[in-house]
Amino acid sequence: EDRFTIAGRTFGSRLIMGTGGAPSLEVLDRALAASGTELTTVAMRRVDPSAPGSVLDVLRRRGIAVLPNTAGCYTAGDAVLTARLAREALGTNWVKVEVINDERTLLPDPIETFDAAERLIADGFVVLPYIGDDPALARRLEQAGCAAVMPLGSPIGSGLGIRNPHSIELIVEAVSVPVILDAGIGTASDAALAMELGCEAVMLATAVTRAQRPERMAAAMRSAVEAGRLARLAGRIPRRRYAEASSPLTP
Amino acid sequence: EDRFTIAGRTFGSRLIMGTGGAPSLEVLDRALAASGTELTTVAMRRVDPSAPGSVLDVLRRRGIAVLPNTAGCYTAGDAVLTARLAREALGTNWVKVEVINDERTLLPDPIETFDAAERLIADGFVVLPYIGDDPALARRLEQAGCAAVMPLGSPIGSGLGIRNPHSIELIVEAVSVPVILDAGIGTASDAALAMELGCEAVMLATAVTRAQRPERMAAAMRSAVEAGRLARLAGRIPRRRYAEASSPLTP
Amino acid sequence: EDRFTIAGRTFGSRLIMGTGGAPSLEVLDRALAASGTELTTVAMRRVDPSAPGSVLDVLRRRGIAVLPNTAGCYTAGDAVLTARLAREALGTNWVKVEVINDERTLLPDPIETFDAAERLIADGFVVLPYIGDDPALARRLEQAGCAAVMPLGSPIGSGLGIRNPHSIELIVEAVSVPVILDAGIGTASDAALAMELGCEAVMLATAVTRAQRPERMAAAMRSAVEAGRLARLAGRIPRRRYAEASSPLTP
Amino acid sequence: EDRFTIAGRTFGSRLIMGTGGAPSLEVLDRALAASGTELTTVAMRRVDPSAPGSVLDVLRRRGIAVLPNTAGCYTAGDAVLTARLAREALGTNWVKVEVINDERTLLPDPIETFDAAERLIADGFVVLPYIGDDPALARRLEQAGCAAVMPLGSPIGSGLGIRNPHSIELIVEAVSVPVILDAGIGTASDAALAMELGCEAVMLATAVTRAQRPERMAAAMRSAVEAGRLARLAGRIPRRRYAEASSPLTP
Repeated sequence: EDRFTIAGRTFGSRLIMGTGGAPSLEVLDRALAASGTELTTVAMRRVDPSAPGSVLDVLRRRGIAVLPNTAGCYTAGDAVLTARLAREALGTNWVKVEVINDERTLLPDPIETFDAAERLIADGFVVLPYIGDDPALARRLEQAGCAAVMPLGSPIGSGLGIRNPHSIELIVEAVSVPVILDAGIGTASDAALAMELGCEAVMLATAVTRAQRPERMAAAMRSAVEAGRLARLAGRIPRRRYAEASSPLTP
Repeated sequence: EDRFTIAGRTFGSRLIMGTGGAPSLEVLDRALAASGTELTTVAMRRVDPSAPGSVLDVLRRRGIAVLPNTAGCYTAGDAVLTARLAREALGTNWVKVEVINDERTLLPDPIETFDAAERLIADGFVVLPYIGDDPALARRLEQAGCAAVMPLGSPIGSGLGIRNPHSIELIVEAVSVPVILDAGIGTASDAALAMELGCEAVMLATAVTRAQRPERMAAAMRSAVEAGRLARLAGRIPRRRYAEASSPLTP
Repeated sequence: EDRFTIAGRTFGSRLIMGTGGAPSLEVLDRALAASGTELTTVAMRRVDPSAPGSVLDVLRRRGIAVLPNTAGCYTAGDAVLTARLAREALGTNWVKVEVINDERTLLPDPIETFDAAERLIADGFVVLPYIGDDPALARRLEQAGCAAVMPLGSPIGSGLGIRNPHSIELIVEAVSVPVILDAGIGTASDAALAMELGCEAVMLATAVTRAQRPERMAAAMRSAVEAGRLARLAGRIPRRRYAEASSPLTP
Repeated sequence: EDRFTIAGRTFGSRLIMGTGGAPSLEVLDRALAASGTELTTVAMRRVDPSAPGSVLDVLRRRGIAVLPNTAGCYTAGDAVLTARLAREALGTNWVKVEVINDERTLLPDPIETFDAAERLIADGFVVLPYIGDDPALARRLEQAGCAAVMPLGSPIGSGLGIRNPHSIELIVEAVSVPVILDAGIGTASDAALAMELGCEAVMLATAVTRAQRPERMAAAMRSAVEAGRLARLAGRIPRRRYAEASSPLTP
């Protein structure tokens, strides 16, 4: 079976879902089921773990693991604090570190992210940082002890897909921890491409939750991630400038 | 169920396989099974329908329909002749018209292709022409009575994928017969993209038969076509220049 | 000097201007001057050669040659008729054949264009056909006796640039008559790219005439065409996946 | 006149040349002249300012300003040291900070680069950092006091051009100091595109010094930068999905 592993935990599904953007918990629930996901990130600043009827209930019922994230933090200090609150509230030392530089683009701040990652690793966390598509930063974060790196394809919620496949390939070559494509996915072919480039998993939220038919898009993403992974393993034909007849070799 | 229809015949699988390029009939057989295809094209100039142990036997055993093609023809006259021989030998009036302009690129000749299509339609054939990604030619061929159009993504066997998605979108808008993306597919995300652009089906051969592991790539393509089709039906999010937070709307 | 030749006539400027889209004749006049063009196309169906104060007067005063075009024609017959009227009115046997398939996309019809080209060549015309980016059609038109081929980069007026550089390269390789990139140019880098791909000249209109400052954009296009041509002749460095230090070799 | 300004110094040419990669000082000399550059970067670790017949002599003779760079440094400490040596040797407090993460890709290390920039700014330097195409890092460096930011188009020496134009646009929007496109330029259209995206200048070396004909490529780059700048100022037409006839509006 083709499972993947982060920090010793293995997962059967390579599709990690965010929970933001859904029109209702019912829609989210059905989309999560259709996606087959086993791991979901939740913004700790926007959820009250003690409140009944929250997204956490949905996840518990479905048996989907929770990866708390620090969305909404603008400094390393905020992210560290948020991670600690999450650890206490949810009983997990895993955290997706997300430190944002500005409100408009929501792009991750490399300096604060690196600082937060170092501090949280020193504090015993399993850290998965959300970063730009920067191979050098990815390598630095691996050296600092991160359990995975989560480069963006394009800005969160933009649906622009993977703007720079070459950078994602360089990241996959640069690190040996899992690379999880995070942010920018708009449609199924984007997710398939991420896997073909060598990512171990794909993380997405609004591409599903804000699609016209979220449940169907969740199924599309599930198939796309499987397709891209299979294609990576299958070994694609090389690209050629010119044609090559497909028929002559056949008996 | 999401079936598609060409000239009154419906198909459950939207993946049409070519039979060229496989290292052996056994490999081809397993790849066809993994692909789930229900329709396969065979080059009439390279197969002897009466010989036992041919690719046609494999298809018969699997219950996969045969769409004869005129690969290897350089003029309308050759294509017409080849189509008639196919009709006699295989008992089908369907034909994929393929008239090639030169040996190196194997690009289809629009003038000969149009001529052949007109003559074959007049002779009672159901014609599916292989063409460049030209919306105007696609419209002309529909007006001439073709049952579908089969534009290329890039040259046969190049694995360059869909070089001009904008043209494929314009073709989908220009005609009401099915558009089948044919030629150039290299990997799973290419096939998913074709479906997202609005194609009704994808046709490919060497992307599977010459992959390092053909059977696995066949499974990848099967999932990719399903993923792309589901994504098309699901209604993707719009592309935005800037980010949009995914979390705020979540309860 | 780096001149280029069509059917025995040589030109110093590789920028061919269309005259459509300008807000006024004065603006057009200044833009033409800034562009340095020596050849301009004029839609015969939209100009009255005998009327004073027309675009033809501007061109005469500037000493810019006129290449009549058949814009607005939908059939080969219309194009042939229009070309003959142009020959009589303007005293030139050169014609840019433009036969359009539909009003919305204004994409050229390959079947009618080929038919018109054959008939006009038989009638002694020097024919420059406007076509899609189809290498096979380009080769057919060269074989039919066309003096140049004018493939589009993208639909007229779309400003989408060269959507399929690979096709333009294949056309440059496929024919030995000049390839003139026509339609779709939006900005300077598009024009430079056309020349780098091996085109002998670039034809454009609205990219200049509908720019916010047409005269300045005309100067931009002039420089861009020169830059792209020089770069083609200079022999660019190869593309590499990885970096190569630029400094070690320097003394 | 269209000059641009960094930290109070203005330049007429928007093409900044590196000096690495030339086959000889004579070739470099002629290429510099053809480029029209007024500012050149020199790797301090690879030049001996006191040696006669060095690249510095060529620059002095041509009256081209020198921007020392810290190429070859792997840590902030090394870069700070190198910048100080350069200040002493060349009498300039300007420095292009370049801190590399690994030998193979030569990609800049964001953490070390930011650290070096902060320390050098505190020490009175005018700092121009070479960075990945990360808008958030660019903003951080502006806030830290950098005089410009120099994002890459693609890895040094790769000739891959601008892999992610969207990121360069976001950087231009994110900062108010000049953005200088640095690294990856392969040919003229790449340089034109950089200017169209809003960069104030383009920096390149091997695209010229290792072209087959360096002098001619230098002239191409000079024209391309001018073309792109003019096009930016001219205000390009919008991109449209569909065609728009260019002729109807003309008298």
